[in-house]
Amino acid sequence: MLAIRLIERKRDGGRIEPGEWRALLGAYVAGHVPEYQMAAFLMAAYLRGLDRDETAALTESMLRSGASLDLHGISAPRIDKHSTGGVGDKVSLVLAPLAAAVGIVVPMVSGRGLGHTGGTLDKLDAIPGFRSDLTLAQARAQLERIGCVLLGQSGEIAPVDRKLYALRDATATVESIPLIAASIMSKKLAEGLTGLVLDVKRGSGSFLQTLERGIELSQTMIALGAAHQCPVVALVTAMDRPLGRACGNALETEEAIHALRGEGPPDLMEVTYALAAEMMMLGALAPDRASARERLAGAIASGAAAEKFKEIIEAQGGNPAVVDDPALMPQAEAIELCRASRRGFVAQIEPRAVGRGIIALGGGRTTMEDTLDPGVGFVITAKPGDWVEAGEAIASVFARDEAGLRAGAAALREAIRIGDEAEPPLPLISHRVTQHGVAEVYDGV
Amino acid sequence: MLAIRLIERKRDGGRIEPGEWRALLGAYVAGHVPEYQMAAFLMAAYLRGLDRDETAALTESMLRSGASLDLHGISAPRIDKHSTGGVGDKVSLVLAPLAAAVGIVVPMVSGRGLGHTGGTLDKLDAIPGFRSDLTLAQARAQLERIGCVLLGQSGEIAPVDRKLYALRDATATVESIPLIAASIMSKKLAEGLTGLVLDVKRGSGSFLQTLERGIELSQTMIALGAAHQCPVVALVTAMDRPLGRACGNALETEEAIHALRGEGPPDLMEVTYALAAEMMMLGALAPDRASARERLAGAIASGAAAEKFKEIIEAQGGNPAVVDDPALMPQAEAIELCRASRRGFVAQIEPRAVGRGIIALGGGRTTMEDTLDPGVGFVITAKPGDWVEAGEAIASVFARDEAGLRAGAAALREAIRIGDEAEPPLPLISHRVTQHGVAEVYDGV
Repeated sequence: MLAIRLIERKRDGGRIEPGEWRALLGAYVAGHVPEYQMAAFLMAAYLRGLDRDETAALTESMLRSGASLDLHGISAPRIDKHSTGGVGDKVSLVLAPLAAAVGIVVPMVSGRGLGHTGGTLDKLDAIPGFRSDLTLAQARAQLERIGCVLLGQSGEIAPVDRKLYALRDATATVESIPLIAASIMSKKLAEGLTGLVLDVKRGSGSFLQTLERGIELSQTMIALGAAHQCPVVALVTAMDRPLGRACGNALETEEAIHALRGEGPPDLMEVTYALAAEMMMLGALAPDRASARERLAGAIASGAAAEKFKEIIEAQGGNPAVVDDPALMPQAEAIELCRASRRGFVAQIEPRAVGRGIIALGGGRTTMEDTLDPGVGFVITAKPGDWVEAGEAIASVFARDEAGLRAGAAALREAIRIGDEAEPPLPLISHRVTQHGVAEVYDGV
Repeated sequence: MLAIRLIERKRDGGRIEPGEWRALLGAYVAGHVPEYQMAAFLMAAYLRGLDRDETAALTESMLRSGASLDLHGISAPRIDKHSTGGVGDKVSLVLAPLAAAVGIVVPMVSGRGLGHTGGTLDKLDAIPGFRSDLTLAQARAQLERIGCVLLGQSGEIAPVDRKLYALRDATATVESIPLIAASIMSKKLAEGLTGLVLDVKRGSGSFLQTLERGIELSQTMIALGAAHQCPVVALVTAMDRPLGRACGNALETEEAIHALRGEGPPDLMEVTYALAAEMMMLGALAPDRASARERLAGAIASGAAAEKFKEIIEAQGGNPAVVDDPALMPQAEAIELCRASRRGFVAQIEPRAVGRGIIALGGGRTTMEDTLDPGVGFVITAKPGDWVEAGEAIASVFARDEAGLRAGAAALREAIRIGDEAEPPLPLISHRVTQHGVAEVYDGV
């Protein structure tokens, strides 16, 4: 009877009190509230919204539903990054070792890809032997020892979130800012963080397509963090084109390794440095962006960041030699260049079309049960705004076989538009959101 | 994938096309759309609404999901009545035999009570041996022979409605005008009607508490009927107090028998005559209300209406002798008078409190699995506006035992308020709604 009263109240635009959130989620996890009642509640919540207090109470209830990484014995700043997801977004793989190399403790819990966006865990799976399914006790020990762990969401952390997320996915109730914010923050707060940096993607390939929704999500998460002594800073970055050049699991891990060795593409480096600088400033490890950036560039130049990635891989059962020889990762059987069909400006590289291409190649998921071919994908060397001649190589397709090459080439033809005029792409980094407000910060400047 | 696309569209306020309604309901009935997806869809439909075309397509899909009573071989007008439900509403038991006695064919499908309102089938169950679970073939044969059948909703008629209604009941999505209208009309149209009269209850004890919502429901059903050559007329009647005096299953059937014998309470007779007159006018069996009423009063005075009820009872396996001797129905063991606690005007008799009292006595349901004690209930002789002296008898409680008497008396004390001033109750019959518009028709005049 509790559930139906709460459905009615939310349906009519009323508020759910903190004790009621606890009771509802507790009964749901225990199986006493059936999925269909929770589905009706979620749709009412999606359409009627949750206010700040309700979002906080929901987050708190989800956080308390599971175990936390107890890191209070670690005195170093404990800071993680979360991205709303995109195509070619391998920032985590560069950022986590880099931040750990400059003294930040990084307990990073990541997910798998679904739909057009990739997932960090899938990229890590391309490293032979790598395991992300550690227990919280193992993760804690690794953090104490080497300062970074790259973890999957286990049943230990916020178990109600896993159940709720699957239901939201099946009932068209995913894209609700309060529900998204509560889902992310309940997991992040369980990491015992002293700070969190958010990478809010913007543009056609992103989850939240308008700037306003991205800023709303940032502000909601900043408020949730503030209530738990976990300051949150968000950067709004471009996802109207893929980030970097590689798209596909092993290809992206390889690009991340290049980046850690100082050979990353400029846009990937720019976003990684900007996010890492925010982490350092949150952790009081740098007084300002310029000095943070200097130390970060130094950690790459000295090899410390790449070395840290090797340590992480080794600690988690993987073969650290991939950092020196990425060819140890699964390779595609068939490779083909994709050439410009005409001369002109690269007007658009549509991330969703690229993401669909990866799925077509067998490297992405449409359901959580799909198994992936890690070696397939694209390396797109052209960037929006580039001038290209007809027949010029603009990308490569990495596929399992001939049919894959054809499907990949077709996807690229759909994704890459060449025109007579160069339309200005979105600024790579456009806004910085903190608890003090929103500032425009074009391209990290 | 169909379901999630339709959930998304309705969530965002879009329209569902006729073929999509058919596909969605077909997949739902076949078990290919899980309950949780339909629950999310229903909540989106509740909050976003359905337009007239969508409501028509939904009704059509529900109607086509099952069998219909094929009555096209019957040349007499085939007209039914539907009430939105209330406390003490035994109109169907009087109206069906009365209308049949004046030449209307009445294929009446009724339901069971849930919550504070009673159900016609529960009242009929008080008649020893009476069976409402006929097949459609049996119902058709009975209609051809005696012109009236009192039927429960079988799995044959609109099966998707049964499944959907149970889900709506569990997900707080019942009170949506388009969903209510489609549910009622899909069943009524399956009866093969040439006309339908609606009794839309208004006031604190009714399902739709505002006049505006009652008129909206009427107009929605009028439009649905018009699309199927089934003209619909609605009367708005008062449910700010119980109708008649008896509340409780056997007690109400007894009162209905008294009404058929010419000894009914004035308010019950007034509503019954008004609805029956509409049925006669819809069936072209009377030119106007006055002549309809004359024939109806004649059918009661001559005994024809009571005789028709005996025929119906006998045809459906019941003991027709109850019409001459209602004491053959289950009787309460314990009876006690309830007296006015002070002198003054009867200011209010709250129907919901009376309904809750019947549930407390064991004569009503809170879940569809509850079994009922048919003999219990109330006879409330006082009416709002009456002047009463302290200690004057105003009602009787009929219970199973002493504890029941106490619970019933407590419910009546909560339901009946005596004050210094008489507040005017709602007019018994206030509005008449047809496809030509809404007219005020206070108290049947």
